[in-house]
Amino acid sequence: MNKPATGGRTFIGRFQCGDDLLGSLTELCKKENIRAGVFSLIGAVQNAKLGYYDQAEKKYTGCVELNEKLEVVSCTGNISLKDGEIFVHAHIGLADHQGKAYGGHLMPGTIIFAAEYYIQELTGVTLERVKDMVTGLPLWK
Amino acid sequence: MNKPATGGRTFIGRFQCGDDLLGSLTELCKKENIRAGVFSLIGAVQNAKLGYYDQAEKKYTGCVELNEKLEVVSCTGNISLKDGEIFVHAHIGLADHQGKAYGGHLMPGTIIFAAEYYIQELTGVTLERVKDMVTGLPLWK
Amino acid sequence: MNKPATGGRTFIGRFQCGDDLLGSLTELCKKENIRAGVFSLIGAVQNAKLGYYDQAEKKYTGCVELNEKLEVVSCTGNISLKDGEIFVHAHIGLADHQGKAYGGHLMPGTIIFAAEYYIQELTGVTLERVKDMVTGLPLWK
Repeated sequence: MNKPATGGRTFIGRFQCGDDLLGSLTELCKKENIRAGVFSLIGAVQNAKLGYYDQAEKKYTGCVELNEKLEVVSCTGNISLKDGEIFVHAHIGLADHQGKAYGGHLMPGTIIFAAEYYIQELTGVTLERVKDMVTGLPLWK
Repeated sequence: MNKPATGGRTFIGRFQCGDDLLGSLTELCKKENIRAGVFSLIGAVQNAKLGYYDQAEKKYTGCVELNEKLEVVSCTGNISLKDGEIFVHAHIGLADHQGKAYGGHLMPGTIIFAAEYYIQELTGVTLERVKDMVTGLPLWK
Repeated sequence: MNKPATGGRTFIGRFQCGDDLLGSLTELCKKENIRAGVFSLIGAVQNAKLGYYDQAEKKYTGCVELNEKLEVVSCTGNISLKDGEIFVHAHIGLADHQGKAYGGHLMPGTIIFAAEYYIQELTGVTLERVKDMVTGLPLWK
Protein backbone atom coordinates (compact mmCIF):
# COMPACT_ATOMS: atom_id res chain seq x y z
CA MET A 1 0.00 0.00 0.00
CA ASN A 2 1.69 3.16 -1.29
CA LYS A 3 -0.17 6.43 -1.80
CA PRO A 4 0.89 9.68 -3.42
CA ALA A 5 0.11 12.75 -1.34
CA THR A 6 0.50 16.50 -1.49
CA GLY A 7 2.07 18.74 1.10
CA GLY A 8 -0.63 20.63 2.99
CA ARG A 9 -0.24 23.04 5.88
CA THR A 10 2.91 23.18 7.99
CA PHE A 11 2.99 23.91 11.72
CA ILE A 12 5.84 24.54 14.10
CA GLY A 13 5.57 25.19 17.81
CA ARG A 14 6.02 23.89 21.31
CA PHE A 15 3.91 22.16 23.92
CA GLN A 16 3.47 23.07 27.58
CA CYS A 17 5.53 21.72 30.43
CA GLY A 18 3.42 19.32 32.49
CA ASP A 19 1.12 18.23 29.67
CA ASP A 20 0.85 14.74 28.24
CA LEU A 21 3.00 14.36 25.11
CA LEU A 22 0.78 12.02 23.07
CA GLY A 23 -2.31 13.90 24.27
CA SER A 24 -0.83 17.24 23.20
CA LEU A 25 0.01 15.93 19.74
CA THR A 26 -3.44 14.44 19.33
CA GLU A 27 -5.25 17.52 20.64
CA LEU A 28 -3.34 19.82 18.29
CA CYS A 29 -4.07 17.63 15.26
CA LYS A 30 -7.75 17.50 16.19
CA LYS A 31 -7.92 21.27 16.79
CA GLU A 32 -6.30 21.99 13.40
CA ASN A 33 -8.17 19.11 11.72
CA ILE A 34 -4.98 17.48 10.44
CA ARG A 35 -6.30 14.18 9.08
CA ALA A 36 -3.10 12.97 7.44
CA GLY A 37 0.47 14.01 8.06
CA VAL A 38 3.86 13.38 9.57
CA PHE A 39 5.73 15.03 12.42
CA SER A 40 9.06 15.27 14.20
CA LEU A 41 9.71 16.50 17.74
CA ILE A 42 12.59 16.96 20.16
CA GLY A 43 12.70 18.10 23.77
CA ALA A 44 12.64 16.52 27.20
CA VAL A 45 10.15 14.61 29.33
CA GLN A 46 9.63 14.19 33.06
CA ASN A 47 9.06 10.45 32.67
CA ALA A 48 8.17 8.04 29.87
CA LYS A 49 5.69 5.26 29.16
CA LEU A 50 6.66 3.07 26.23
CA GLY A 51 4.66 0.36 24.56
CA TYR A 52 6.10 -2.80 23.07
CA TYR A 53 4.05 -4.87 20.67
CA ASP A 54 4.25 -8.62 21.23
CA GLN A 55 4.42 -9.88 17.64
CA ALA A 56 3.57 -13.46 18.64
CA GLU A 57 0.70 -12.59 21.00
CA LYS A 58 -0.44 -9.80 18.64
CA LYS A 59 -1.00 -7.27 21.41
CA TYR A 60 0.80 -4.51 23.29
CA THR A 61 2.28 -6.01 26.43
CA GLY A 62 2.55 -4.08 29.68
CA CYS A 63 4.30 -0.81 29.05
CA VAL A 64 7.81 0.10 30.14
CA GLU A 65 7.72 2.91 32.69
CA LEU A 66 10.80 5.07 32.98
CA ASN A 67 10.41 7.22 36.07
CA GLU A 68 13.19 9.65 35.42
CA LYS A 69 13.77 12.87 33.55
CA LEU A 70 14.91 12.15 29.99
CA GLU A 71 15.95 13.95 26.83
CA VAL A 72 13.77 13.22 23.79
CA VAL A 73 16.37 12.13 21.22
CA SER A 74 13.72 11.70 18.54
CA CYS A 75 9.97 11.46 18.29
CA THR A 76 8.54 10.81 14.85
CA GLY A 77 5.43 9.34 13.38
CA ASN A 78 2.26 9.99 11.48
CA ILE A 79 -1.30 11.22 11.68
CA SER A 80 -4.18 9.29 10.17
CA LEU A 81 -7.69 8.10 10.97
CA LYS A 82 -8.72 5.26 13.26
CA ASP A 83 -12.41 4.55 13.84
CA GLY A 84 -13.12 7.85 12.10
CA GLU A 85 -11.06 9.83 14.64
CA ILE A 86 -7.76 11.63 14.14
CA PHE A 87 -5.08 9.32 15.49
CA VAL A 88 -1.38 9.94 16.17
CA HIS A 89 1.10 7.07 15.89
CA ALA A 90 4.41 8.08 17.49
CA HIS A 91 7.64 6.31 18.34
CA ILE A 92 10.11 7.94 20.71
CA GLY A 93 13.82 7.71 21.47
CA LEU A 94 15.05 8.90 24.87
CA ALA A 95 18.32 9.31 26.76
CA ASP A 96 19.22 9.70 30.42
CA HIS A 97 21.88 11.91 32.04
CA GLN A 98 24.58 9.39 31.19
CA GLY A 99 23.58 9.31 27.53
CA LYS A 100 22.04 5.84 27.82
CA ALA A 101 19.28 5.41 25.27
CA TYR A 102 15.77 3.98 25.46
CA GLY A 103 12.91 3.82 23.01
CA GLY A 104 9.55 2.46 21.99
CA HIS A 105 5.97 3.21 21.05
CA LEU A 106 4.85 6.46 22.75
CA MET A 107 2.07 5.81 25.26
CA PRO A 108 -0.21 8.17 27.18
CA GLY A 109 1.31 9.15 30.51
CA THR A 110 4.58 10.51 29.11
CA ILE A 111 4.75 14.02 30.60
CA ILE A 112 6.39 16.92 28.76
CA PHE A 113 9.15 19.07 30.19
CA ALA A 114 9.79 20.81 26.85
CA ALA A 115 8.72 19.74 23.34
CA GLU A 116 9.38 21.44 20.01
CA TYR A 117 7.48 19.97 17.09
CA TYR A 118 7.15 20.25 13.34
CA ILE A 119 4.05 18.90 11.60
CA GLN A 120 3.62 18.46 7.85
CA GLU A 121 0.02 17.94 6.83
CA LEU A 122 -0.59 15.72 3.81
CA THR A 123 -3.55 16.34 1.55
CA GLY A 124 -4.99 14.43 -1.38
CA VAL A 125 -4.75 11.21 0.56
CA THR A 126 -6.99 9.30 2.96
CA LEU A 127 -5.27 7.12 5.53
CA GLU A 128 -7.65 4.89 7.47
CA ARG A 129 -6.55 2.26 9.92
CA VAL A 130 -8.32 -1.08 10.04
CA LYS A 131 -7.33 -4.21 11.91
CA ASP A 132 -4.77 -6.16 9.91
CA MET A 133 -5.19 -9.91 10.23
CA VAL A 134 -1.51 -10.74 9.69
CA THR A 135 -0.13 -8.54 12.47
CA GLY A 136 -3.19 -7.77 14.59
CA LEU A 137 -2.28 -4.07 14.31
CA PRO A 138 -4.53 -1.26 13.08
CA LEU A 139 -2.81 -0.62 9.74
CA TRP A 140 -3.69 1.53 6.74
CA LYS A 141 -5.96 -0.21 4.26
CA MET B 1 28.93 20.18 -0.77
CA ASN B 2 25.51 21.81 -0.32
CA LYS B 3 22.83 21.72 -3.00
CA PRO B 4 19.50 23.50 -3.23
CA ALA B 5 16.62 21.23 -4.19
CA THR B 6 12.90 21.40 -4.80
CA GLY B 7 10.22 19.28 -3.20
CA GLY B 8 8.95 16.69 -5.68
CA ARG B 9 6.39 13.98 -5.14
CA THR B 10 5.39 12.78 -1.69
CA PHE B 11 4.50 9.20 -0.81
CA ILE B 12 3.07 7.65 2.33
CA GLY B 13 2.35 3.99 2.90
CA ARG B 14 3.33 0.77 4.56
CA PHE B 15 5.38 -2.27 3.71
CA GLN B 16 4.45 -5.92 4.05
CA CYS B 17 5.12 -8.10 7.06
CA GLY B 18 7.87 -10.59 6.23
CA ASP B 19 9.62 -8.48 3.59
CA ASP B 20 13.13 -7.10 3.84
CA LEU B 21 13.12 -3.50 5.11
CA LEU B 22 16.01 -2.08 3.08
CA GLY B 23 14.90 -4.10 0.07
CA SER B 24 11.34 -2.74 0.33
CA LEU B 25 12.56 0.86 0.52
CA THR B 26 14.88 0.35 -2.45
CA GLU B 27 12.28 -1.47 -4.54
CA LEU B 28 9.70 1.27 -3.96
CA CYS B 29 12.13 4.03 -4.90
CA LYS B 30 13.11 2.15 -8.05
CA LYS B 31 9.48 1.45 -8.97
CA GLU B 32 8.53 5.13 -8.54
CA ASN B 33 11.85 6.30 -10.02
CA ILE B 34 12.71 8.43 -7.00
CA ARG B 35 16.30 9.44 -7.77
CA ALA B 36 16.76 11.90 -4.91
CA GLY B 37 14.87 12.25 -1.67
CA VAL B 38 14.58 11.73 2.04
CA PHE B 39 12.40 9.46 4.13
CA SER B 40 11.26 8.62 7.65
CA LEU B 41 9.75 5.37 8.89
CA ILE B 42 8.47 3.79 12.10
CA GLY B 43 7.20 0.30 12.86
CA ALA B 44 8.57 -2.97 14.13
CA VAL B 45 10.94 -5.66 12.84
CA GLN B 46 11.30 -9.37 13.44
CA ASN B 47 15.09 -9.07 13.74
CA ALA B 48 17.76 -6.57 12.76
CA LYS B 49 21.09 -6.47 10.96
CA LEU B 50 23.11 -3.36 11.63
CA GLY B 51 26.31 -2.24 9.99
CA TYR B 52 29.10 -0.34 11.72
CA TYR B 53 31.72 1.46 9.68
CA ASP B 54 35.27 1.06 10.95
CA GLN B 55 36.61 4.58 10.47
CA ALA B 56 40.24 3.47 10.84
CA GLU B 57 39.99 0.41 8.58
CA LYS B 58 37.68 2.30 6.18
CA LYS B 59 35.25 -0.57 5.76
CA TYR B 60 32.04 -1.95 7.26
CA THR B 61 32.96 -4.54 9.84
CA GLY B 62 30.90 -7.64 10.49
CA CYS B 63 27.32 -6.61 11.14
CA VAL B 64 25.52 -6.75 14.47
CA GLU B 65 22.71 -9.29 14.37
CA LEU B 66 19.84 -8.79 16.77
CA ASN B 67 17.73 -11.92 16.70
CA GLU B 68 14.71 -10.61 18.51
CA LYS B 69 11.54 -8.71 17.75
CA LEU B 70 12.12 -4.97 18.06
CA GLU B 71 10.28 -1.67 17.75
CA VAL B 72 11.65 0.68 15.08
CA VAL B 73 12.19 3.87 17.09
CA SER B 74 13.39 5.76 14.03
CA CYS B 75 14.56 4.99 10.52
CA THR B 76 15.69 7.95 8.45
CA GLY B 77 17.94 8.56 5.52
CA ASN B 78 18.18 9.53 1.90
CA ILE B 79 17.83 8.34 -1.66
CA SER B 80 20.47 9.07 -4.28
CA LEU B 81 22.44 7.37 -7.05
CA LYS B 82 25.34 4.95 -6.69
CA ASP B 83 26.90 3.42 -9.79
CA GLY B 84 23.94 4.84 -11.72
CA GLU B 85 21.42 2.91 -9.63
CA ILE B 86 18.89 4.23 -7.13
CA PHE B 87 20.42 3.70 -3.71
CA VAL B 88 18.87 4.02 -0.23
CA HIS B 89 21.06 5.02 2.72
CA ALA B 90 19.22 4.34 5.96
CA HIS B 91 20.09 4.42 9.65
CA ILE B 92 17.81 2.79 12.17
CA GLY B 93 17.09 3.05 15.88
CA LEU B 94 15.48 0.09 17.64
CA ALA B 95 14.19 -0.88 21.07
CA ASP B 96 13.43 -4.17 22.80
CA HIS B 97 10.58 -5.08 25.14
CA GLN B 98 12.39 -3.47 28.07
CA GLY B 99 12.90 -0.20 26.20
CA LYS B 100 16.61 -0.83 25.70
CA ALA B 101 17.81 0.90 22.55
CA TYR B 102 20.05 -0.21 19.68
CA GLY B 103 21.02 1.40 16.42
CA GLY B 104 23.20 1.53 13.35
CA HIS B 105 23.38 1.43 9.58
CA LEU B 106 20.44 -0.57 8.19
CA MET B 107 21.62 -3.71 6.41
CA PRO B 108 19.80 -6.22 4.21
CA GLY B 109 18.32 -9.04 6.25
CA THR B 110 16.27 -6.84 8.60
CA ILE B 111 12.77 -8.30 8.28
CA ILE B 112 9.64 -6.16 8.61
CA PHE B 113 6.81 -6.84 11.01
CA ALA B 114 5.13 -3.48 10.29
CA ALA B 115 6.57 -0.38 8.65
CA GLU B 116 4.94 2.98 7.94
CA TYR B 117 6.97 5.32 5.78
CA TYR B 118 6.95 8.83 4.41
CA ILE B 119 9.10 9.70 1.39
CA GLN B 120 9.79 13.20 0.10
CA GLU B 121 11.23 13.24 -3.39
CA LEU B 122 13.67 16.03 -4.22
CA THR B 123 13.90 17.38 -7.73
CA GLY B 124 16.22 19.86 -9.39
CA VAL B 125 19.20 18.13 -7.84
CA THR B 126 21.48 15.26 -8.82
CA LEU B 127 23.06 13.28 -6.01
CA GLU B 128 25.70 10.83 -7.14
CA ARG B 129 27.88 8.81 -4.82
CA VAL B 130 31.55 8.31 -5.61
CA LYS B 131 34.24 6.85 -3.41
CA ASP B 132 35.60 9.50 -1.08
CA MET B 133 39.33 9.14 -0.45
CA VAL B 134 39.26 10.66 3.03
CA THR B 135 36.66 8.32 4.51
CA GLY B 136 36.54 5.43 2.05
CA LEU B 137 32.77 5.87 1.88
CA PRO B 138 30.65 6.40 -1.24
CA LEU B 139 29.77 10.06 -0.67
CA TRP B 140 28.04 12.69 -2.81
CA LYS B 141 30.41 14.46 -5.16
CA MET C 1 2.39 28.26 20.99
CA ASN C 2 1.60 26.87 17.53
CA LYS C 3 2.47 28.73 14.34
CA PRO C 4 1.57 28.03 10.72
CA ALA C 5 4.52 28.22 8.35
CA THR C 6 5.29 27.80 4.68
CA GLY C 7 7.92 25.58 3.14
CA GLY C 8 10.85 27.69 1.94
CA ARG C 9 14.07 26.55 0.37
CA THR C 10 15.32 22.97 0.64
CA PHE C 11 18.97 21.97 0.92
CA ILE C 12 20.68 18.60 0.82
CA GLY C 13 24.37 17.94 1.18
CA ARG C 14 27.17 16.66 3.34
CA PHE C 15 29.65 18.09 5.79
CA GLN C 16 33.42 17.60 5.91
CA CYS C 17 35.22 14.91 7.87
CA GLY C 18 36.99 16.52 10.83
CA ASP C 19 34.64 19.48 11.24
CA ASP C 20 32.44 20.15 14.24
CA LEU C 21 28.90 18.84 13.68
CA LEU C 22 26.91 21.54 15.48
CA GLY C 23 29.28 24.20 14.14
CA SER C 24 28.82 22.97 10.57
CA LEU C 25 25.03 23.03 10.86
CA THR C 26 25.08 26.52 12.37
CA GLU C 27 27.58 27.87 9.84
CA LEU C 28 25.54 26.56 6.91
CA CYS C 29 22.31 28.06 8.25
CA LYS C 30 24.03 31.41 8.78
CA LYS C 31 25.64 31.33 5.32
CA GLU C 32 22.29 30.59 3.66
CA ASN C 33 20.41 32.87 6.07
CA ILE C 34 18.01 30.14 7.14
CA ARG C 35 16.17 31.83 10.02
CA ALA C 36 13.55 29.15 10.61
CA GLY C 37 13.52 25.51 9.61
CA VAL C 38 13.93 21.87 10.45
CA PHE C 39 16.57 19.31 9.55
CA SER C 40 17.48 15.64 9.62
CA LEU C 41 20.96 14.13 9.34
CA ILE C 42 22.64 10.72 9.40
CA GLY C 43 26.29 9.71 9.25
CA ALA C 44 29.07 8.94 11.69
CA VAL C 45 31.14 10.86 14.21
CA GLN C 46 34.64 10.46 15.63
CA ASN C 47 33.42 11.19 19.17
CA ALA C 48 30.38 12.80 20.77
CA LYS C 49 29.57 15.41 23.37
CA LEU C 50 26.02 15.25 24.66
CA GLY C 51 24.22 17.65 26.93
CA TYR C 52 21.64 16.69 29.51
CA TYR C 53 19.34 19.32 30.99
CA ASP C 54 18.83 19.07 34.73
CA GLN C 55 15.10 19.81 34.98
CA ALA C 56 15.28 20.46 38.74
CA GLU C 57 18.41 22.63 38.67
CA LYS C 58 17.25 24.27 35.40
CA LYS C 59 20.65 24.08 33.74
CA TYR C 60 22.67 21.80 31.48
CA THR C 61 24.85 19.65 33.67
CA GLY C 62 28.34 18.52 32.66
CA CYS C 63 28.18 16.92 29.27
CA VAL C 64 28.58 13.23 28.50
CA GLU C 65 31.75 12.63 26.49
CA LEU C 66 31.85 9.54 24.33
CA ASN C 67 35.41 9.12 23.11
CA GLU C 68 34.77 6.52 20.46
CA LYS C 69 33.74 6.35 16.84
CA LEU C 70 29.95 6.14 16.52
CA GLU C 71 27.22 5.88 13.91
CA VAL C 72 24.74 8.75 13.90
CA VAL C 73 21.42 6.89 14.15
CA SER C 74 19.44 10.14 13.98
CA CYS C 75 20.06 13.84 14.33
CA THR C 76 17.02 16.07 14.10
CA GLY C 77 16.00 19.49 15.28
CA ASN C 78 15.18 23.02 14.31
CA ILE C 79 16.58 26.39 13.33
CA SER C 80 15.37 29.59 14.92
CA LEU C 81 16.65 32.83 16.45
CA LYS C 82 18.28 33.32 19.85
CA ASP C 83 19.53 36.77 20.87
CA GLY C 84 18.95 37.79 17.25
CA GLU C 85 21.34 35.14 15.92
CA ILE C 86 20.56 32.03 13.90
CA PHE C 87 20.55 29.14 16.36
CA VAL C 88 20.44 25.37 15.76
CA HIS C 89 18.80 23.09 18.33
CA ALA C 90 19.76 19.48 17.63
CA HIS C 91 19.30 16.17 19.41
CA ILE C 92 21.34 13.18 18.35
CA GLY C 93 21.09 9.41 18.61
CA LEU C 94 24.26 7.34 18.30
CA ALA C 95 25.35 3.70 18.25
CA ASP C 96 28.64 1.93 18.81
CA HIS C 97 30.10 -1.08 17.00
CA GLN C 98 27.98 -3.47 19.06
CA GLY C 99 24.78 -1.60 18.23
CA LYS C 100 24.51 -0.09 21.73
CA ALA C 101 22.68 3.23 21.58
CA TYR C 102 23.33 6.60 23.16
CA GLY C 103 21.70 9.98 22.79
CA GLY C 104 21.19 13.51 24.00
CA HIS C 105 21.41 17.19 23.19
CA LEU C 106 24.12 17.78 20.57
CA MET C 107 26.97 19.88 22.00
CA PRO C 108 29.94 21.57 20.33
CA GLY C 109 32.95 19.25 20.20
CA THR C 110 31.21 16.39 18.36
CA ILE C 111 33.49 15.80 15.38
CA ILE C 112 32.16 14.60 12.01
CA PHE C 113 33.38 11.54 10.18
CA ALA C 114 30.59 11.70 7.59
CA ALA C 115 27.30 13.62 7.74
CA GLU C 116 24.48 13.78 5.19
CA TYR C 117 21.82 16.37 5.94
CA TYR C 118 18.49 17.61 4.68
CA ILE C 119 17.27 21.07 5.66
CA GLN C 120 13.76 22.42 5.10
CA GLU C 121 13.54 26.16 5.52
CA LEU C 122 10.28 27.56 6.88
CA THR C 123 9.06 30.96 5.84
CA GLY C 124 6.17 33.12 6.96
CA VAL C 125 7.06 32.49 10.57
CA THR C 126 9.34 34.11 13.15
CA LEU C 127 10.73 31.85 15.84
CA GLU C 128 12.52 33.72 18.61
CA ARG C 129 13.83 32.11 21.76
CA VAL C 130 13.47 33.88 25.09
CA LYS C 131 14.14 32.50 28.54
CA ASP C 132 11.13 30.56 29.77
CA MET C 133 10.54 30.96 33.50
CA VAL C 134 8.91 27.56 33.97
CA THR C 135 11.75 25.48 32.52
CA GLY C 136 14.69 27.89 32.49
CA LEU C 137 15.19 27.01 28.81
CA PRO C 138 15.34 29.43 25.89
CA LEU C 139 11.97 28.58 24.30
CA TRP C 140 9.97 30.14 21.48
CA LYS C 141 7.77 33.00 22.62
